Amino acid sequence: MVYPDTFEGFAVHDTKKWSTVEKIEFKPKPFGPYDVDIKVEACGVCGSDVHTVTGGWEAPVLPVIVGHEIVGKVVKVGDKVTTLKVGDRAGVGAQIWSCLECEICKQGNETYCPKWVDTYNDAYPDGTRTYGGYSSHIRAHEHFAFPIPEKLNTLGVAPMLCAGITTYSPLVRNGAGPGKKVGVVGIGGLGHFAIMWAKALGCEVYVFSRSSKKKADALQLGADHFVATGEGENWNSDLKYKLDMIISTANSTKNFDFDAYAIMLKVHAKFIAVGLPEDQFQISGGTLLKNGCYIGSSHLGSRQEMIDMLNLAAEKGIESWYEAIAISKGGIKEALERCHDGDVKYRFTLSDYSKEFA
Amino acid sequence: MVYPDTFEGFAVHDTKKWSTVEKIEFKPKPFGPYDVDIKVEACGVCGSDVHTVTGGWEAPVLPVIVGHEIVGKVVKVGDKVTTLKVGDRAGVGAQIWSCLECEICKQGNETYCPKWVDTYNDAYPDGTRTYGGYSSHIRAHEHFAFPIPEKLNTLGVAPMLCAGITTYSPLVRNGAGPGKKVGVVGIGGLGHFAIMWAKALGCEVYVFSRSSKKKADALQLGADHFVATGEGENWNSDLKYKLDMIISTANSTKNFDFDAYAIMLKVHAKFIAVGLPEDQFQISGGTLLKNGCYIGSSHLGSRQEMIDMLNLAAEKGIESWYEAIAISKGGIKEALERCHDGDVKYRFTLSDYSKEFA
Repeated sequence: MVYPDTFEGFAVHDTKKWSTVEKIEFKPKPFGPYDVDIKVEACGVCGSDVHTVTGGWEAPVLPVIVGHEIVGKVVKVGDKVTTLKVGDRAGVGAQIWSCLECEICKQGNETYCPKWVDTYNDAYPDGTRTYGGYSSHIRAHEHFAFPIPEKLNTLGVAPMLCAGITTYSPLVRNGAGPGKKVGVVGIGGLGHFAIMWAKALGCEVYVFSRSSKKKADALQLGADHFVATGEGENWNSDLKYKLDMIISTANSTKNFDFDAYAIMLKVHAKFIAVGLPEDQFQISGGTLLKNGCYIGSSHLGSRQEMIDMLNLAAEKGIESWYEAIAISKGGIKEALERCHDGDVKYRFTLSDYSKEFA
Repeated sequence: MVYPDTFEGFAVHDTKKWSTVEKIEFKPKPFGPYDVDIKVEACGVCGSDVHTVTGGWEAPVLPVIVGHEIVGKVVKVGDKVTTLKVGDRAGVGAQIWSCLECEICKQGNETYCPKWVDTYNDAYPDGTRTYGGYSSHIRAHEHFAFPIPEKLNTLGVAPMLCAGITTYSPLVRNGAGPGKKVGVVGIGGLGHFAIMWAKALGCEVYVFSRSSKKKADALQLGADHFVATGEGENWNSDLKYKLDMIISTANSTKNFDFDAYAIMLKVHAKFIAVGLPEDQFQISGGTLLKNGCYIGSSHLGSRQEMIDMLNLAAEKGIESWYEAIAISKGGIKEALERCHDGDVKYRFTLSDYSKEFA
């Protein structure tokens, strides 16, 4: 047992062998008065994990331990911590720190703080590297550790900590609610949450997918309308100028007909790309001009939004559609490779941490 | 004198000879009860005119008569016209018609009406082609003909009908006013208006230009700060997360460092491209994610915004910085070519219509 001096986790050492992990020990940041230590019990596998270990976004600092949909038990709290106590169940998402002092943080925009620190493949201001949740423990400032409502199960809630909040925040920030028509592009880890949240918030939900393969799933998740964009011409013709927002979870811009989506938006409405493709969007001014629409992205969500989302999930009985895979070298390899190949409905959660970490 | 059966104007017949015009006669749309006829006295020369005659945006329908910053005297009004009378001075901008019946029109978004008709190189629902203001007359529904306040001079106000409103509308729609920091990219026909409006509305104005050549002009126009983006590294470092909006008048995306502009925006603030480049923006999701900013465009402005803008100009003594060129084959050639080459400070207005049109 290495805790509390060091933690251990499964690290990728080579982006060319991005699904091969080896267990390493690492030193967490110095424990501060606002910090909590969480013994990890589950961690979702996020598309970001794959983009990171493959170097798809940019070369990671190696070795890298990914995982940022973390749920576990609080085993230690700092003197000044007021929101969690030892024994509580808590979650950590994709952000592990922000300054909490700047105007941006004070306005509830801590996920846009210029000093934000990612949960993995990043560094604290003092230089300490951050390592994610494919690990025995995670240390976080209490602002970035969220109490998990009793009703939610550990494996089903884990994916909400990144995929869930990534789709929830832009919905609520743009007024999702009764009477609003929301488009969701793509049905995957992000998309399945976007559909469930939009429906739970009272919106009329339009789901766009290339084929009809996932139609039954979309409807079961709460879609009111399903459009197979690859199975006919003029699939958007009845929807021009109709949608209040589009949440796009597409993670590639290749063969992506942005113009066809943009024209479905109401005047000045927004296309919010949360899928974060590795390639760039090619945007014509003329497309944006027709209805004065905007394209943007979104980064996670505030602590308050995270708490609201978890409460909404508890209230409405929402959990991720997930497949549990026991954490191990082999389990991680399978999860990363299948996630890379899109062979997942719609999220993996790594489980059985007690078998690998004492 | 061909009026009232036909109008005459200077048409381009070949996009390869885009600055060569010949006078032609053309039939306007049938005169309706809400229409007004205006005998043109002045017309601004817009970058759109050049994009159109060169085929830069797309091939125009030839022959094409451009010009959509039109000021003249009302010579005829339909039975139901209430906002103008014969003898009034009136302006027509870049839009000549919308349905005025749809939800979009009713919400004051008539410039985004799916059925909008451009003032030139477009067609009415009945198929009648539209011809612009390098002409003897223009016929328009009164909704798209604007009374010109007494105080404003004809040659100085003309460029407001397109360049003016194009920059005014996104400013006011995004809350430009005291306490707001507005970035303006580029100092030209559009940019010089953006600076003057932002200042008149009470904003703190940051102007970005590649070199310092136009610094004195920018300050005279009302800029509070001037940044020469091509004359030093890290030109944006003091401005990250500081601006409430950016109005970009850049008309090319080549060598345009979008990321450097985007990061100057506050959380969820907007980069509004009104320059309408012929090439596409290349946008990374990661850029949009950092501060949750949006990129969009804007199409002209509502009738009410046009009236408000003209009143603001009258109240504050604002007029275009323009150079008058007498309309003629030679005058148009000079204006189009110098506009194409950027040799204009900051707008041309075609004048002396009575010498060419009886």
